[in-house]
Amino acid sequence: MIINGPNLNLLGTRETNIYGDQTFEDFLEDLKEGYFDFSIAYFQSNHEGEIIDKLQEAEKKNYKGIILNAGGFTHTSVAIRDCVAAIKTPVIEVHISNIYAREEFRHKSLLSGVCKGIIAGFGLESYALALDSFAE
Amino acid sequence: MIINGPNLNLLGTRETNIYGDQTFEDFLEDLKEGYFDFSIAYFQSNHEGEIIDKLQEAEKKNYKGIILNAGGFTHTSVAIRDCVAAIKTPVIEVHISNIYAREEFRHKSLLSGVCKGIIAGFGLESYALALDSFAE
Amino acid sequence: MIINGPNLNLLGTRETNIYGDQTFEDFLEDLKEGYFDFSIAYFQSNHEGEIIDKLQEAEKKNYKGIILNAGGFTHTSVAIRDCVAAIKTPVIEVHISNIYAREEFRHKSLLSGVCKGIIAGFGLESYALALDSFAE
Amino acid sequence: MIINGPNLNLLGTRETNIYGDQTFEDFLEDLKEGYFDFSIAYFQSNHEGEIIDKLQEAEKKNYKGIILNAGGFTHTSVAIRDCVAAIKTPVIEVHISNIYAREEFRHKSLLSGVCKGIIAGFGLESYALALDSFAE
Amino acid sequence: MIINGPNLNLLGTRETNIYGDQTFEDFLEDLKEGYFDFSIAYFQSNHEGEIIDKLQEAEKKNYKGIILNAGGFTHTSVAIRDCVAAIKTPVIEVHISNIYAREEFRHKSLLSGVCKGIIAGFGLESYALALDSFAE
Amino acid sequence: MIINGPNLNLLGTRETNIYGDQTFEDFLEDLKEGYFDFSIAYFQSNHEGEIIDKLQEAEKKNYKGIILNAGGFTHTSVAIRDCVAAIKTPVIEVHISNIYAREEFRHKSLLSGVCKGIIAGFGLESYALALDSFAE
Amino acid sequence: MIINGPNLNLLGTRETNIYGDQTFEDFLEDLKEGYFDFSIAYFQSNHEGEIIDKLQEAEKKNYKGIILNAGGFTHTSVAIRDCVAAIKTPVIEVHISNIYAREEFRHKSLLSGVCKGIIAGFGLESYALALDSFAE
Amino acid sequence: MIINGPNLNLLGTRETNIYGDQTFEDFLEDLKEGYFDFSIAYFQSNHEGEIIDKLQEAEKKNYKGIILNAGGFTHTSVAIRDCVAAIKTPVIEVHISNIYAREEFRHKSLLSGVCKGIIAGFGLESYALALDSFAE
Amino acid sequence: MIINGPNLNLLGTRETNIYGDQTFEDFLEDLKEGYFDFSIAYFQSNHEGEIIDKLQEAEKKNYKGIILNAGGFTHTSVAIRDCVAAIKTPVIEVHISNIYAREEFRHKSLLSGVCKGIIAGFGLESYALALDSFAE
Amino acid sequence: MIINGPNLNLLGTRETNIYGDQTFEDFLEDLKEGYFDFSIAYFQSNHEGEIIDKLQEAEKKNYKGIILNAGGFTHTSVAIRDCVAAIKTPVIEVHISNIYAREEFRHKSLLSGVCKGIIAGFGLESYALALDSFAE
Amino acid sequence: MIINGPNLNLLGTRETNIYGDQTFEDFLEDLKEGYFDFSIAYFQSNHEGEIIDKLQEAEKKNYKGIILNAGGFTHTSVAIRDCVAAIKTPVIEVHISNIYAREEFRHKSLLSGVCKGIIAGFGLESYALALDSFAE
Amino acid sequence: MIINGPNLNLLGTRETNIYGDQTFEDFLEDLKEGYFDFSIAYFQSNHEGEIIDKLQEAEKKNYKGIILNAGGFTHTSVAIRDCVAAIKTPVIEVHISNIYAREEFRHKSLLSGVCKGIIAGFGLESYALALDSFAE
Repeated sequence: MIINGPNLNLLGTRETNIYGDQTFEDFLEDLKEGYFDFSIAYFQSNHEGEIIDKLQEAEKKNYKGIILNAGGFTHTSVAIRDCVAAIKTPVIEVHISNIYAREEFRHKSLLSGVCKGIIAGFGLESYALALDSFAE
Repeated sequence: MIINGPNLNLLGTRETNIYGDQTFEDFLEDLKEGYFDFSIAYFQSNHEGEIIDKLQEAEKKNYKGIILNAGGFTHTSVAIRDCVAAIKTPVIEVHISNIYAREEFRHKSLLSGVCKGIIAGFGLESYALALDSFAE
Repeated sequence: MIINGPNLNLLGTRETNIYGDQTFEDFLEDLKEGYFDFSIAYFQSNHEGEIIDKLQEAEKKNYKGIILNAGGFTHTSVAIRDCVAAIKTPVIEVHISNIYAREEFRHKSLLSGVCKGIIAGFGLESYALALDSFAE
Repeated sequence: MIINGPNLNLLGTRETNIYGDQTFEDFLEDLKEGYFDFSIAYFQSNHEGEIIDKLQEAEKKNYKGIILNAGGFTHTSVAIRDCVAAIKTPVIEVHISNIYAREEFRHKSLLSGVCKGIIAGFGLESYALALDSFAE
Repeated sequence: MIINGPNLNLLGTRETNIYGDQTFEDFLEDLKEGYFDFSIAYFQSNHEGEIIDKLQEAEKKNYKGIILNAGGFTHTSVAIRDCVAAIKTPVIEVHISNIYAREEFRHKSLLSGVCKGIIAGFGLESYALALDSFAE
Repeated sequence: MIINGPNLNLLGTRETNIYGDQTFEDFLEDLKEGYFDFSIAYFQSNHEGEIIDKLQEAEKKNYKGIILNAGGFTHTSVAIRDCVAAIKTPVIEVHISNIYAREEFRHKSLLSGVCKGIIAGFGLESYALALDSFAE
Repeated sequence: MIINGPNLNLLGTRETNIYGDQTFEDFLEDLKEGYFDFSIAYFQSNHEGEIIDKLQEAEKKNYKGIILNAGGFTHTSVAIRDCVAAIKTPVIEVHISNIYAREEFRHKSLLSGVCKGIIAGFGLESYALALDSFAE
Repeated sequence: MIINGPNLNLLGTRETNIYGDQTFEDFLEDLKEGYFDFSIAYFQSNHEGEIIDKLQEAEKKNYKGIILNAGGFTHTSVAIRDCVAAIKTPVIEVHISNIYAREEFRHKSLLSGVCKGIIAGFGLESYALALDSFAE
Repeated sequence: MIINGPNLNLLGTRETNIYGDQTFEDFLEDLKEGYFDFSIAYFQSNHEGEIIDKLQEAEKKNYKGIILNAGGFTHTSVAIRDCVAAIKTPVIEVHISNIYAREEFRHKSLLSGVCKGIIAGFGLESYALALDSFAE
Repeated sequence: MIINGPNLNLLGTRETNIYGDQTFEDFLEDLKEGYFDFSIAYFQSNHEGEIIDKLQEAEKKNYKGIILNAGGFTHTSVAIRDCVAAIKTPVIEVHISNIYAREEFRHKSLLSGVCKGIIAGFGLESYALALDSFAE
Repeated sequence: MIINGPNLNLLGTRETNIYGDQTFEDFLEDLKEGYFDFSIAYFQSNHEGEIIDKLQEAEKKNYKGIILNAGGFTHTSVAIRDCVAAIKTPVIEVHISNIYAREEFRHKSLLSGVCKGIIAGFGLESYALALDSFAE
Repeated sequence: MIINGPNLNLLGTRETNIYGDQTFEDFLEDLKEGYFDFSIAYFQSNHEGEIIDKLQEAEKKNYKGIILNAGGFTHTSVAIRDCVAAIKTPVIEVHISNIYAREEFRHKSLLSGVCKGIIAGFGLESYALALDSFAE
């Protein structure tokens, strides 16, 4: 399952010099094709609470793993951190850009300490690498 | 009125060595019995905004007091703090575990400064103690 | 378009010695009259996610500009900051009170760095001045 | 056993707008009456060392629990903290006022991390709540 | 009365990509025309002491209000802060650029806490908005 | 009344290049002669608790004022601070050396905020100046 | 010689609840009478540079000592600090109010480390005590 | 090319509960088999200087990319950071364990800001994922 | 002379997994036997003031040296620090456990800067090593 | 053009063990002789504003470059920093002593970031080296 | 085995007022004589990597213990820290001078937390005391 | 003698927009010609230890002075700092670019406090100016 946080629905239209001009939906199609033996669920929300709801649900539905790009919530949400720590489903933290090469306040992730692994800076391919990690 | 914040719906299933294996719903039954002369309303949400809505509503409905365990929002939400400060209904801040004996970032509560009192570390009995404080 | 954040729906009833006893709805009527050649949309929410949804929508609907008073989210929301940075519609940050004369944690705004301008401390007239800035 | 730290013997005469005009001795009488099935010992001292002596003694005498209001030592005494950690008798940290709503240097308690629970801000009723916690 | 601090006399010649190529004198002419029912005095100085002298004088001469852009002194002068606090004439803090989008050390204004309001980021129109605030 | 804190009984023997070679007892004799119309009580202790006891006693005995050199406790004792704040007798903080010209950790006095005045750096004459302040 | 820094010329008119309603000129008359065997020069300026000029001049004219109340410059001027350190005339730092009981940024004096002594919090009598220290 | 920093030669013998009991050499064999269409060079050193030499050499030899696990140097070496920034060959930062879930001083990487991407927490599979990223 | 601070009288009963189950008295017997040509005085107190008294007394009695384990006072007592600095008898700071491998607040010793040497982490043998240092 | 800041007029008389006993005027004569093909203007002031005035003037008069020793203003003046950034004439920051080997608060220069180069610690020869840099 | 870090080869020639005028080689001879039943290996290097190599080697060769004076690397090398933590041979941290009585940046040792014990401030005798600790 | 630290061997090929396209070897030829009466030795290394070795050697060989550009080690090496402090040969710290106008972590030099002088920001001419300083 892939969960995307706030503003990631703007991908492909927003700051295309940084994020490229592909929408996440288009990319998702490619991804599903490339990893046809995975069944991939997708969810995006600008609401902190909905992301927590979805994470809890993912555990109940026995997903094998969660790929989480929490966007701006990465740096501010203790509530999402608590949720990731509470559920047993492994969570991979993913970022499209290299957050450590951007503003100071993006260098600190509240989630990294409770996620299984972190992948950042490979553009949309970061999601593919996260899938690889579940494959291996 | 008791308001519980994010992930507290997982009680009884999550990290039971810390939080015990009783769900909040079960505990609530016991509580209502023990304090039968109180009428206790209960609300849980993973959404910051819904908690604010509920706090505002609690004032309009003239509840005598609010017992608030804001979970992870305790440490990050200026908005809930503002709300507690804005309404006239007294609010008691409650925590199941001793937050000061846990990670550094849990030692700072944004809410403590505007609540009437703080009770932390007594397990679920913390809620009972808060009710006692309204009784006295 | 005017977007108000959490607890601003309590205006006129809450801490009236600081904020005055006029509700925002009443003030809005006056504002619309005074600026009759503007068409002003209004939205208030206690939910961080809804504010982000609305900001994104405002860009799609080609609003000329956004006047944003994010209340308590001003100091904690990287997600709203990212959204303001992502959309092309200019955003003016507005505060009723002088936030720099209040508590320490209100001195730091995460939004100021990505807004076009900041107006603070003029009471409800802050909104009128923001409208003036679009007029000029 | 109740142990009070420095300046708490001034209660009832000092800053009565904050602390009320009841002396602790008077209050103690009420408390003993209300909790007649407890045998409550009481000790007050302005000396850090005497409080440590008393805490050690309390363990040797097999008291069921200790209610500790360490006053100004709350924020500075590593020695009392070590003592609370060393003895097996459970200790409840109690404060009359809400220390988190007061000066910055009162926000940090060295004791909270090693106490069983914390109760603060209920006036003298804080002691009663602590007794309740032993009853439950 | 408008008071400009150090280096603002270079406007129109200095870093024109940021500040535009209009001199303040030219702009002042436009301003006086646009607000012909105001009588606007203007003063610029690179000397901290002269600005304090002028602020004190402005009070004695019963000006209705002061629009102050203290330039680099904004971030370093406790003396100007004391002066603004000491006089009764209301002072509006104005900045041409959005100081919160610039270097870290410009994010902290010593003056904001004692001014009536703050307007920043609207270019030279910031001054016009400040005049509007006196009109309203 | 003059109260001296820890190690001040070593005066005249300790680091004489800084503190001079006069003992406090000798100096006290001179002081009493010079201010013969004052009746001066004197107390020294290395115990934090005894100083608090003495401060409380001084209020009960209606001393006109207290001259307090709390030595090393100046920088660490919240308990003495609370006591000074609690009693009504005015307290003058006195230091023999200029504490601000010494080590970093001596620059912060917990007592200064609750004392009536501070005198530091005049050697033993600091005590005489404090007496002058009561005379005036 | 007495040197007063910025805004001290407003004494008697400014925030009279803190500073009293006596002007410094009136007080100076009293002072000169009370200490008729001293010849007291007086200088006030809102300009940092003029104060430095005056301090240098004071040494050249062989004044016995300088009483310096640098006002807001106390907390920001390394240049005045250097000047006090450079001249041989002893300088006493004086403050009317207890700066340590006011805002955080007033607790740090850049001058204290190089002055001979500090006197603060006795109102205008602080100046008289400083004169006493020269007398002794 | 894979470059390993200090102590990574101890893999398989050191703290095996954390790092597993496979040596890097064994793992490397597996890796080369699995990615037989890559030609993989390997280098390990406990010397900061040798790692810099090797990074510079890697550019000269036109390697397609570098996988760098700088071990303890990750948190202290500005020199390696400068080198990574100076060469044009893309560098992927890799960690076996999740460094953000370990000691505070391991949370800050000096290298992240100049690397192309970061992969951490997948055990030795982190290296395989880095190879995947070059493949894609 | 050996001086032990607060809670060290609990040795042998307290947290025996860390401190072992030997009481200090038993250990002292062994120590005296092993170093029969030394005459060793011993003093323990939970009172900061008594330790200062004893340190001053130790100098007067011309002890050759002092071995000081100030326990929790190590991290908070400026008063003991001043005393160690004031007396001429050399003082060795000793700790049973490795304080640098424990909680953050135990890493900072106020005493280290004024002691002759520091020995920490060798269990009770730390005292023996300190005696060796006087022997050499 | 050489601009010297506050207290540099005292050179040769002040702390001669640090600064030598040559006045700047004497040194200037030597300098002019040694660099006879340069025309060197000189200005010293204790006034922050006058230094800004002079820097602006230097640009208007088309000086080839400015050698600036801002003395104590180096560490506190954002206004001078802004001025150096605003003018196009290159500015060399010069210090007689090695400011990094002195007090902590002298280690931070606000000017370094906007100057062309920095030369410190060579005594008065620092000025000669700055001239060399213009020659080369 | 004794391992000495950078610049310790200069002992006896460098800052002899602090370190004495005995070279380490001379001292080593004395040490070997005094502890003739120990076989002592010695290694000195200015290279961080070589010290790590040697620590790893020491474990492989089954040395009973290591005495490590890492010199300047004490405060900066996470890599040496990792190595000490990785090997099983016990390591004693030794310093000739009292590092806590020197510059601020020497107060923090990265190694103390993973060493078995710390001995500092006894001059070259610190090494002898470390040997004693292995003997005991 | 000139000593260059890590990555300075890449000069002329690396980030030529900042550092120019001249290699250090070419520049060295020019330098030797221009200062033909100096005999200039040159050494470059990416190894911290080799730089320390060389600095120690430079003293033994009685070089008149050392020009040191420690590159990335400038900000992290306490060991090089100790070495510069230990040797008697005067060391000039040199930087090609203005380090104060670059990233935050480059503003702090560990070496500046023990070097004789600092020259930064003049490109390769910085080395020539350092030679001038030895000539004068």
